[in-house]
Amino acid sequence: MINIALLGFGTVGKGTYEILERQKEEIKEITGEEIVVKKILKRNLDFETSINRDIFTNDYTDIIEDDEIKLIAEMTGDVDSSYKYIKEALLRKKHIVTANKAVVSENFEEFLKLAKENNVNFLYESSVAGSIPIIKPLKDQSIINNIKKIRGILNGTSNFLLYKMTEENYDYSEVLKMAQEMGFAESDPTDDVEGIDALRKLRILSTIAFKASIKNEDIDSYGISSISKVDIEYLKEKNKKIKLIAESKIEEDKFMALVEPVILNSKDNLANIANAENSVEISGQNYGSLTFIGEGAGMLPTGNAVVTDILDAITNNNYNVIINKNLKNNNNDFKANYYIRVKKDVELNNITLEEEIFKNYKIIKTKEIKRKELINSLKEINKKDYFFARYN
Amino acid sequence: MINIALLGFGTVGKGTYEILERQKEEIKEITGEEIVVKKILKRNLDFETSINRDIFTNDYTDIIEDDEIKLIAEMTGDVDSSYKYIKEALLRKKHIVTANKAVVSENFEEFLKLAKENNVNFLYESSVAGSIPIIKPLKDQSIINNIKKIRGILNGTSNFLLYKMTEENYDYSEVLKMAQEMGFAESDPTDDVEGIDALRKLRILSTIAFKASIKNEDIDSYGISSISKVDIEYLKEKNKKIKLIAESKIEEDKFMALVEPVILNSKDNLANIANAENSVEISGQNYGSLTFIGEGAGMLPTGNAVVTDILDAITNNNYNVIINKNLKNNNNDFKANYYIRVKKDVELNNITLEEEIFKNYKIIKTKEIKRKELINSLKEINKKDYFFARYN
Repeated sequence: MINIALLGFGTVGKGTYEILERQKEEIKEITGEEIVVKKILKRNLDFETSINRDIFTNDYTDIIEDDEIKLIAEMTGDVDSSYKYIKEALLRKKHIVTANKAVVSENFEEFLKLAKENNVNFLYESSVAGSIPIIKPLKDQSIINNIKKIRGILNGTSNFLLYKMTEENYDYSEVLKMAQEMGFAESDPTDDVEGIDALRKLRILSTIAFKASIKNEDIDSYGISSISKVDIEYLKEKNKKIKLIAESKIEEDKFMALVEPVILNSKDNLANIANAENSVEISGQNYGSLTFIGEGAGMLPTGNAVVTDILDAITNNNYNVIINKNLKNNNNDFKANYYIRVKKDVELNNITLEEEIFKNYKIIKTKEIKRKELINSLKEINKKDYFFARYN
Repeated sequence: MINIALLGFGTVGKGTYEILERQKEEIKEITGEEIVVKKILKRNLDFETSINRDIFTNDYTDIIEDDEIKLIAEMTGDVDSSYKYIKEALLRKKHIVTANKAVVSENFEEFLKLAKENNVNFLYESSVAGSIPIIKPLKDQSIINNIKKIRGILNGTSNFLLYKMTEENYDYSEVLKMAQEMGFAESDPTDDVEGIDALRKLRILSTIAFKASIKNEDIDSYGISSISKVDIEYLKEKNKKIKLIAESKIEEDKFMALVEPVILNSKDNLANIANAENSVEISGQNYGSLTFIGEGAGMLPTGNAVVTDILDAITNNNYNVIINKNLKNNNNDFKANYYIRVKKDVELNNITLEEEIFKNYKIIKTKEIKRKELINSLKEINKKDYFFARYN
């Protein structure tokens, strides 16, 4: 029998608990262990439940000081307390499984080090791309392959917005409101629409893939909050789609790591990712590309990833992460052609290759320019008055 | 140091050897072990190589009787001798990793049992879908999810043919010849184009997914050897694509498992699988669907899967397969609408819902009928004179 604790009993906590209960038999048969949820940390203990109330506590001490508890699954969604929870747990030689991309991306190397020093497992499949089991194969690949590029749609909310705008002709503010009503977007959607959530996930994937610390601050992001119907319509006429793409690649000792809107051909696998799905594409020396597509969030999809990690932690079925390289950040010098939509009277002659007037706006295709040149050129313009995207 | 042996030094053997050599450092860092290829079984020892010739032998006894050899990677592509090689190795408590879908599909339960009894690992990631790491997540899912359906493109050759016919308007015999010249199809392409290769892989995936023995003989297949340009053109006008789909699903205590051409909407992820790629889609209780897309074959792609298994075997990073259900075969009673193309004068009134003449052929859309009804109706017609596909 293995006693575990869950921190948090929201969407992910409930999904995790449900799967553990439902699959008790299979888990016992394969791992040889009965997994018992001994404690669940929950802030507010005044609530209805059919589960034995003794399991719930709002005091982390009940969990951290219980030597019977061998593994803690952290799913609070909080950043500050979860850093403390995770650190303490690792120091006390308890396995950690977490769904918390913010706290993992902020403290990745430290957590990996603590886990290694204390000979316990630190797993975080559920912190990236929901139900897509990407961390495990990525770790395998980092050992036996030389991964050159990671490309993906790592945020379901922003994909949902772009998908609905493309399929059903909504304007941005309309579709955001609809998404919020449907529960696909938060009341403050900043992290999702500005690419920050995707950035954190890309940070985790890139560090594993390239065997080098690529931190949140190493990644630049530009989101979709100033996209308009006009952009979607213009690109549709050219048979193109726009997606918020998280991408990182290495060349010799340099890396590029960006989250920004990218214009894709309709044949590109990523162009067709629907609704709130996520997708990750890995390219390396051993094959052209390997693509995963799946649900990025939700009670059972994310619970699925948490439970996979719980099993892998208690059976020790997992690999460490190699971090042994130092790479230089090449984002500023990364060259591409960009799409820029501005007001009709704006001139960006220095960087313009082609321009046309479309529905009373100016659509520019830039020369092949460095990203820093693009950012500089747009500095004087109010953010709300332009939208840009990279041509793939 | 762990001594291993490779059986076969063709495409997959060479890819495996190359990756093991190239990634020595990373493998040592993560597994703590140096993996040494002590012996390679090769039929013909009269060949050029830069590798130390002492490693090569044409006598399996040199390998099976060497107690230093802890793992054998079987990649001969042969069915009869590899059955003996694998069985002997497991009985002698040597781990087995194999790329041989034919021998795995013929003897799956027996090999699983022998491995379990002898407390060694039997892994076969490279026997299904080349570079796509599907077996590992499928095993995880079989423990913690209730998988309802598996759907995929499991044969690269047939997908290459259909893809080229669709994109570039080739006729079947033209594109087959081209594929053979390019090395994408064998001189005898039967296994690939008749769906038999895909069938063997579906057998393996379905048994794991549904936790029940679903054997080769339980799966029906109908391939693409009588497809013609006419079919592609007709479906293109309706904005549909045709793919050779391996699909199995369960409902209560019944299963369906078929390999046949299926007509897909262009929005379906599987509709856009290009060239010789493979794809697998899993659907279950914990999420709508999870899709993998990647290269189905080739030296490094398949070698990549073999080496992943080698590492998982020597570190014991893997799960057993649960087989604890008995399911009834429902293929004959499986109902669908079918597309049938026949000569203009053929009447299939009993099953016809709609028909039209297209480019001098009769195109029928059937009523919703049982598969056995479809097969019966076509019994009197020469196989070369019709082509059918299932509407999704």
